[in-house]
Amino acid sequence: MHAATIVDGRIEWQERPDPVPGTGEVLVAVRAAGLNAADLLQRAGRYPAPPGSPADVPGLEVAGEVVALGPGAVRFEEGDRVMAVVGGGAQAERLVVHERHLVPIPDGVEWAVAGGFPEAFTTAHDALFTQAGLAMGERVCVHGAAGGVGTAGVQLAVAAGAEVVATVRDASRRDAVATLGATVVDPEGFGDHGPFDLVLELIGGDNLGADLAALAPGGRITVIGVGAGAKVEVNLLALMAARGRIHGSTLRARSLEDKAAAARAVERHVIPLLGSGRITVPIDATFPLHEVEAAYEHFAAGGKFGKVVLLSDA
Amino acid sequence: MHAATIVDGRIEWQERPDPVPGTGEVLVAVRAAGLNAADLLQRAGRYPAPPGSPADVPGLEVAGEVVALGPGAVRFEEGDRVMAVVGGGAQAERLVVHERHLVPIPDGVEWAVAGGFPEAFTTAHDALFTQAGLAMGERVCVHGAAGGVGTAGVQLAVAAGAEVVATVRDASRRDAVATLGATVVDPEGFGDHGPFDLVLELIGGDNLGADLAALAPGGRITVIGVGAGAKVEVNLLALMAARGRIHGSTLRARSLEDKAAAARAVERHVIPLLGSGRITVPIDATFPLHEVEAAYEHFAAGGKFGKVVLLSDA
Repeated sequence: MHAATIVDGRIEWQERPDPVPGTGEVLVAVRAAGLNAADLLQRAGRYPAPPGSPADVPGLEVAGEVVALGPGAVRFEEGDRVMAVVGGGAQAERLVVHERHLVPIPDGVEWAVAGGFPEAFTTAHDALFTQAGLAMGERVCVHGAAGGVGTAGVQLAVAAGAEVVATVRDASRRDAVATLGATVVDPEGFGDHGPFDLVLELIGGDNLGADLAALAPGGRITVIGVGAGAKVEVNLLALMAARGRIHGSTLRARSLEDKAAAARAVERHVIPLLGSGRITVPIDATFPLHEVEAAYEHFAAGGKFGKVVLLSDA
Repeated sequence: MHAATIVDGRIEWQERPDPVPGTGEVLVAVRAAGLNAADLLQRAGRYPAPPGSPADVPGLEVAGEVVALGPGAVRFEEGDRVMAVVGGGAQAERLVVHERHLVPIPDGVEWAVAGGFPEAFTTAHDALFTQAGLAMGERVCVHGAAGGVGTAGVQLAVAAGAEVVATVRDASRRDAVATLGATVVDPEGFGDHGPFDLVLELIGGDNLGADLAALAPGGRITVIGVGAGAKVEVNLLALMAARGRIHGSTLRARSLEDKAAAARAVERHVIPLLGSGRITVPIDATFPLHEVEAAYEHFAAGGKFGKVVLLSDA
């Protein structure tokens, strides 16, 4: 097979040995693989793959067809359409995934959508519900709402009966985010639209102080992205006065069982909404799998609405 | 009646009108009232009482006898021994408390212990269990373990089957804290004794960075005190890597129903341990109620183990 391979900070489309599924694992023929900000960090050598994932093949999410089963794998059959969050290796023609990390793709969902679904929706669902316990009627602020996790977070919060306020840096993307059900506001002065029961923080940096000031009693700030800065000043008295919480979370470093638990939560609570069309993945652009370097350049340019996804030629 | 009254940053023992219990309220003859750090702040004019509490009579916790019932009060009878966290007014001969905020005092518990129990144990129980979900077998670090909330937190965590590491600034108090069941370590380098599932942070300031570095996956830092500084730098990437949470909490600003809920949790889960002698309130010193100014001077001097409690002459 071929795989996107990191060579001296660039991506090359290289011949690689076919992976072989081990116990409980499934061999997947890749049909679509979404891009994530972590791919750019990994290409630059600043985000090494976790143990058990290929060190030089990027790609954190995949959709494809089951082509072989390892010993003891019982959840799927050859030909099944499946998707998953993986620790790496998705930007390739084939990869091996533990069957407990796979989620079925509902009928009628196209490959580009499935390839851009797992990372963003698993991250957003885990942050909003598993970590922060979002409840109907709560007031949510999503910072950085035009990207993959942002559009997922807005849709999931709206589907759960929350009122959603979204900030979007690029003014040209605001109408598109509003179509997802959010009230889109300027990042400056977003706090005037609070107080918020839950803040989904995909930006970091100076936002944190304003997030805290706009927090309702019992409010939660859940931090998933820190592009604007990771070292922030927090006023603990403000946190105490709100009886608030600040969560941090990331999927990639989790154990097999924690990733499987997140996949099961998505399978039970999010896949039905994808199947019925209540939620979807806005696709910013698709590229052929072997043109991964061009896809990265497009991704790095910013100003996107939704996901950039690689598609196989099959 | 007489009450401790704040006059120009000092406390005077003044004649005041007797309070009258309203609907659902109980008039309590004060037998004991513990001191808290907030009293010193309030005396200095830096911590105003919440609405509904007397502005110039300090005292956040009380133990005493029911002497009259307001309309609709049904939980207690005259002569019952009761205690409560209150918004203020406890350092007086009498005060009015909503019956939903009162908790019965078990037989055999002396007044000094009951007077120093409510604030520290309600705060510690709320932080460890209601906020942070402490579970058996978890590893807990209590910073500032020699004070009222610290000694309560150590005892409650030990009673719940946790392993407790405690830091105590004043070396002369370390043996006493160790008798409560904690492994007492030097505040410098406490992180070497981690990782911790839960950090009860009663100090604040520079501790936060080291707390984060010592956090186990899924760990919680719950901030109750910030004497060493409220504005702290937090590395959000460290929080994300640990999938950690930082909670802040305070009792005083809560609604009637939130305070009542905290009282019910204490009544159900903590009072039985007080009654059986598994937990207690270490008493640093007692003073007669009318010598409240001397008690404050002793409290302010620091280096205490446990609570400073005012006792009535009755």
